[in-house]
Amino acid sequence: MSAEPAKAAPAGPGAGGAPSGVAAEPLRVGLLGHGTVGAAFAELLAERAAEIERFNGRRPVITGVLTRSRGDFAEVLAGADLVVELMGGTEPARAYLLAAMRAGKDVVSANKQLLSQHGEELFEVAREHDVRLRFEAAVAGAVPIVRLLEESLAATPIERIHGIVNGTTNFILSEMARGSDYAQALAEAQRLGYAEADPSDDVSGRDAAAKMAILARLAFGAPVRLEDVRYEGIENLRGDDLQYARELGLGLKLIGTAERREGGLSVRVHPAFLYSGHPLSSVSGPFNAVTVESEAVTEITMSGPGAGGPQTASAVLGDVVSVMTGGARPPAPPLAMRILEDVQSAFYLHLEVADRPGVLAAVTRVLEEQGVSIKSFVQRGHGRGGPSAAGESAPEGRGDREHDVRLVMVIHPLAESRLREALRVLGELDFVRAAPRAIRVIEEEFV
Amino acid sequence: MSAEPAKAAPAGPGAGGAPSGVAAEPLRVGLLGHGTVGAAFAELLAERAAEIERFNGRRPVITGVLTRSRGDFAEVLAGADLVVELMGGTEPARAYLLAAMRAGKDVVSANKQLLSQHGEELFEVAREHDVRLRFEAAVAGAVPIVRLLEESLAATPIERIHGIVNGTTNFILSEMARGSDYAQALAEAQRLGYAEADPSDDVSGRDAAAKMAILARLAFGAPVRLEDVRYEGIENLRGDDLQYARELGLGLKLIGTAERREGGLSVRVHPAFLYSGHPLSSVSGPFNAVTVESEAVTEITMSGPGAGGPQTASAVLGDVVSVMTGGARPPAPPLAMRILEDVQSAFYLHLEVADRPGVLAAVTRVLEEQGVSIKSFVQRGHGRGGPSAAGESAPEGRGDREHDVRLVMVIHPLAESRLREALRVLGELDFVRAAPRAIRVIEEEFV
Repeated sequence: MSAEPAKAAPAGPGAGGAPSGVAAEPLRVGLLGHGTVGAAFAELLAERAAEIERFNGRRPVITGVLTRSRGDFAEVLAGADLVVELMGGTEPARAYLLAAMRAGKDVVSANKQLLSQHGEELFEVAREHDVRLRFEAAVAGAVPIVRLLEESLAATPIERIHGIVNGTTNFILSEMARGSDYAQALAEAQRLGYAEADPSDDVSGRDAAAKMAILARLAFGAPVRLEDVRYEGIENLRGDDLQYARELGLGLKLIGTAERREGGLSVRVHPAFLYSGHPLSSVSGPFNAVTVESEAVTEITMSGPGAGGPQTASAVLGDVVSVMTGGARPPAPPLAMRILEDVQSAFYLHLEVADRPGVLAAVTRVLEEQGVSIKSFVQRGHGRGGPSAAGESAPEGRGDREHDVRLVMVIHPLAESRLREALRVLGELDFVRAAPRAIRVIEEEFV
Repeated sequence: MSAEPAKAAPAGPGAGGAPSGVAAEPLRVGLLGHGTVGAAFAELLAERAAEIERFNGRRPVITGVLTRSRGDFAEVLAGADLVVELMGGTEPARAYLLAAMRAGKDVVSANKQLLSQHGEELFEVAREHDVRLRFEAAVAGAVPIVRLLEESLAATPIERIHGIVNGTTNFILSEMARGSDYAQALAEAQRLGYAEADPSDDVSGRDAAAKMAILARLAFGAPVRLEDVRYEGIENLRGDDLQYARELGLGLKLIGTAERREGGLSVRVHPAFLYSGHPLSSVSGPFNAVTVESEAVTEITMSGPGAGGPQTASAVLGDVVSVMTGGARPPAPPLAMRILEDVQSAFYLHLEVADRPGVLAAVTRVLEEQGVSIKSFVQRGHGRGGPSAAGESAPEGRGDREHDVRLVMVIHPLAESRLREALRVLGELDFVRAAPRAIRVIEEEFV
């Protein structure tokens, strides 16, 4: 039994059907912001209005536009049934959205900063006034992950989410995997419009962290704010790291993770090696992808282009249609859940050490004392030369010259705080030539 | 402005929020069918009922069950707000669903046979009576492709869908890629419960064809029935074909395609080689995956486990929640669109020919006469021996013994009818030792 208001509409071939003589009122859309995305949205809406009317019985029409230099918010609001916010930033976007919802209007936003910092306030007002608040475009561009979590998996307990949720850094890492160094890859991203002149929000991992906060809130029901997310970016990755990834058959990606662990919740963003069968390891270029793991459905992966003008506009228009057809309500009030600061991870460890007898034994001993358990030595090479397969005793057997060798190993999962301490101790050894490097490894771990 | 009935509900922390003193009526679910999926659904619903109530304000409860041996349909219907059909087959499922909708009940079904053969009738009745008709589980198990097409991309013109929509055949092909022959792989699939004792519906491509008919209807708005879908299965694939795929760095999958072409619509299912960067080429085991291409969003891919009891139950419960929250209406009345019978495809061609001078020239001449344009010779080997790189003149230069050689080439796109005619002519040549084999190739072709 459907209880949609369409029941009161004129009879005909169905509320969603063809026009039935009496034209339905248009859906009046107030648009806040008219930059790249705003303009693309207005254009797409005009282009698709007839088709949307055919499917949904009402034609969406933009009845007011507010930009930084023109328009009046009160007027735009008064003339709209639904407000679309594409301004970005927290203020005045927050104030406008709150006012719109308090006036009983449904709202659509693509604003990740706002959602990740003031999500609970917005959700609460949406619940209080029983309006829709949709924000698909705030997370993963055209990839409908919000809808997956809010609707398809609403009845499914989720264990873990892994996501590539920043297309800029994924493009840079893809370029580095093909041999560019970081600076070249960044310049290329800027040239192609994938990175901004100031790329720090992307390359620091902060943008991805905001998106993971939103996803964690939807998946686990716990209030997660940007400040709760630990993040590391890609600025310190080197061509070497990518070269190793290739040699090991691993992908190196900037991965956002949100998962239940030990009765709490861990949300973090960091570069990670992925084994080659992982659904995210083959995602290249400025793409986004998200994998959701749960016991009931094992694993669902979605991928698509990250945020660009047309993709974001398409996601926003999808949200407008969703509001018209009565899509999901705002998330329920949050659950209390402990946010974990220090979780266990497997690591790849990269040491540059003097090539002299006893070094490997010493490294192994220090690691053991620190509670670090070595899973495998994976590669070893001299300087930039081609690496050779490593045996545990290899460095001792090769003490012909005093130059540096690289020790590369994968270590069993341990707490990040323990790993940091072990790295500190290792860094103080006299035969260790450079600061030890550690990168997380995501292993096959289906729930 | 939301016009949901929840507005009339008691005030509180929001309609979707925590219980507010006055308990909402439960959502009474009538269940038709209690086999593997039905039982898994009933169990999952009981397990998740409290959580669903917390998020949506109403608790779903199964109030009646109809099986082949017990229960009365009229009673189940009278006691239900929503009917879930998990019986399979067209009758009596069709009659029950029509009756339920005519009685004003929303319905959820996982029945691909029914949807692909009687979809228009069901959609029409759903529109007439303004009820929801949800069927996510009918297409790709836990992969929410129906929702993507009906909601997220409702405002986006779609150009093409490629899908691996049958997990059984994908599992068999994955096993064959690892060296099994067809019979071994099928036996293994049966042992693991991925294939039925009579696997013909799966291996013939018919199951995938039904699903592609449903997807095509949703993506393009045209009425597509199972009879409109041309399909070929995997029964005639050989270990050789998979071996070539591996050597060429290609995946060999059973691919469903629905696409706009020349003002019409082509819907088909057949084995195809995919270049290694294609999002579907890395989908292994009993998984499903679908790629949707459109100009606005380039390409979105979703993958996840194919239909198994728990996955299907999860998708069905997702549909129940979607009905509670007011998900999408049934598709609009269909558009007329020409269904194309004969479309152009690129092919891989495999010939076994006598190894004697002039053979390659003769083959090339015949192909030319038939309008077949060779893109590349890709591999050539003697019998089962390791293939060697092929030069165009290789067979002539090797006429030391009269034995068979394999000629393998990729040809430029041409109409399938032309290709069949060319194969017929080739098959009649005296130096051609076995029926020529052709497998379609899906090349990089982003819109």
